[in-house]
Amino acid sequence: MTNEIVLTGIKPTGKVHLGNYIAAIKPALQIAKESDCIALFFIADYHALTFIQNRDEFNELSYGIAATWLALGLDPDRVIFYRQSDVPEIFELNWILSCLTPKGLMNRAHAYKAIIDHNQQLGLDTDTGVNMGLFTYPILMTADILLFQSDKVPVGKDQIQYVEIARDIADGFNRSYGDTFKLPNYVVDENTYVIPGLDGRKMSKSYKNTIPLFESADSLKKLINKIKTDSIPPNEPKDPDTSNVFLLYKEFANPSQIQELRENYQKGISWGEAKQELFRVMNDYLEEPRKRYNELMASPEIIDSILLEGAKKARALAAPLLENVKTKIGRYKSL
Amino acid sequence: MTNEIVLTGIKPTGKVHLGNYIAAIKPALQIAKESDCIALFFIADYHALTFIQNRDEFNELSYGIAATWLALGLDPDRVIFYRQSDVPEIFELNWILSCLTPKGLMNRAHAYKAIIDHNQQLGLDTDTGVNMGLFTYPILMTADILLFQSDKVPVGKDQIQYVEIARDIADGFNRSYGDTFKLPNYVVDENTYVIPGLDGRKMSKSYKNTIPLFESADSLKKLINKIKTDSIPPNEPKDPDTSNVFLLYKEFANPSQIQELRENYQKGISWGEAKQELFRVMNDYLEEPRKRYNELMASPEIIDSILLEGAKKARALAAPLLENVKTKIGRYKSL
Repeated sequence: MTNEIVLTGIKPTGKVHLGNYIAAIKPALQIAKESDCIALFFIADYHALTFIQNRDEFNELSYGIAATWLALGLDPDRVIFYRQSDVPEIFELNWILSCLTPKGLMNRAHAYKAIIDHNQQLGLDTDTGVNMGLFTYPILMTADILLFQSDKVPVGKDQIQYVEIARDIADGFNRSYGDTFKLPNYVVDENTYVIPGLDGRKMSKSYKNTIPLFESADSLKKLINKIKTDSIPPNEPKDPDTSNVFLLYKEFANPSQIQELRENYQKGISWGEAKQELFRVMNDYLEEPRKRYNELMASPEIIDSILLEGAKKARALAAPLLENVKTKIGRYKSL
Repeated sequence: MTNEIVLTGIKPTGKVHLGNYIAAIKPALQIAKESDCIALFFIADYHALTFIQNRDEFNELSYGIAATWLALGLDPDRVIFYRQSDVPEIFELNWILSCLTPKGLMNRAHAYKAIIDHNQQLGLDTDTGVNMGLFTYPILMTADILLFQSDKVPVGKDQIQYVEIARDIADGFNRSYGDTFKLPNYVVDENTYVIPGLDGRKMSKSYKNTIPLFESADSLKKLINKIKTDSIPPNEPKDPDTSNVFLLYKEFANPSQIQELRENYQKGISWGEAKQELFRVMNDYLEEPRKRYNELMASPEIIDSILLEGAKKARALAAPLLENVKTKIGRYKSL
């Protein structure tokens, strides 16, 4: 029995915040640590090029996201961790698959449709602001997935359609050329973590209510102090289960710490004290990763060497499949 | 002063016939032989995948077209002769350029527009039968051209728009990221060769009136005998300048032979004799290339080794440019 292949794409979209960490990074690292699957994690830097066309920003984000995952405990000896742009096989497969992808399938992609709806509402030309990377992105994502014969692709709910498109394209190829690609399955985490931001709404860059993960201790303290609370005065009992401070605390504290704070809520801890306790525990937890993150960002050559080592493994895994695909389409003189 | 780079793409679309040879292959080989440009010739096999999704056909055509050009005198020591699918840098650049290509530019490509017009006339959905390879083909062609900093691209009139699109995309990249790509120029051969087919109309696969280039001597003789002539009887003078037999003869005979046949027309040579003379000269001319073609097709490993040698040179030429592009977009930690 061969191990299942689980592929996780990481798009470098901005400074990682607590919400990203708790909802996406922590569970993904947990799965990689516990299961005996072959876990592939890749930095989808060439996807980011569809919306970041600024050299410094692109650079900062793609190194930053790699450093973040490494700092948080991604173990490159245990999982295959690579950067998309280091695996040229993806782009060759991307072209091959393009030729088997009906244009109608792309016309119906949610992300594209959302843009054209928006353009139409504004009275603009349908394709205003749409570049071809954006339009063809689902095919590249299909190549990312199929190149490694991925069994499972953990995704957010908004990404399910991409895995369905990958299945459609794989199925189309298999029907034209004979069984070649495994049909991938999406995995959606049913625990929908909604991590509250500073203002109590879901933590999100677009609400400007985030706590970035690797802030300095000082700045972390200041941000925690900004978390919105109710106006129950000190010494009066407070409900931990409706408190955002407590909710965040549970993500970083150990069970006995959680129990203790719960009791202190009932005893009437002040918001100031509760926040101080949250800061203490969170800062303890993040101190090491933050240090490691800063070290990695100061030595990008270490990031490069880790990712290149991962790309070597990924390419070795991908090579036989791509050769098989090329044989099927007739690239080589028949054997 | 550096030599100009001239890039010629060869699409494997079917059995090469006399019309292809005289109108396209012969002049291209002549230019490569005479000028001191750096000439790149490539088999655009991955373009063919947009319309050939049959393994044997794809295989036969891409080896066949390579063998044809080699048999006709393309000198792989003098020009860089490679197969597109052996140069993965093209597909990586293809993706990068996609992200800088407005979708509107593709919507306006002639070939795509012709298909959707046709679909609309038939009352079909706009994109019926359109695959994404077909839709995005101009970007791949742009990558083919820009990767080598091509100065000149010899094309047929129907291909001019592709070179214009390549210029647009290059210009867009240069404006976003600073001067990077050379803007290519198209070269259209003003001598419009119209080679008559068996029925007197332009020789074309779609008219089924072609003389394939590497037919056996027997079959060539039979085809030449089918060339349509008028009904002037033997012994009456005939006009060489309105005779399709004479027109083809001029492409293969030497000046004194041409002069002699011209005189024999005036003396009243019979059509049968004229055709025999055409066959003799044409067969002499094609005998060696035909033999070489058949040898190559029987030893595809020779074709592979020639094309791989060419791909090595092409990749060496392309590598610094791709590194430069990747540096510009921010792929590497800033220097």
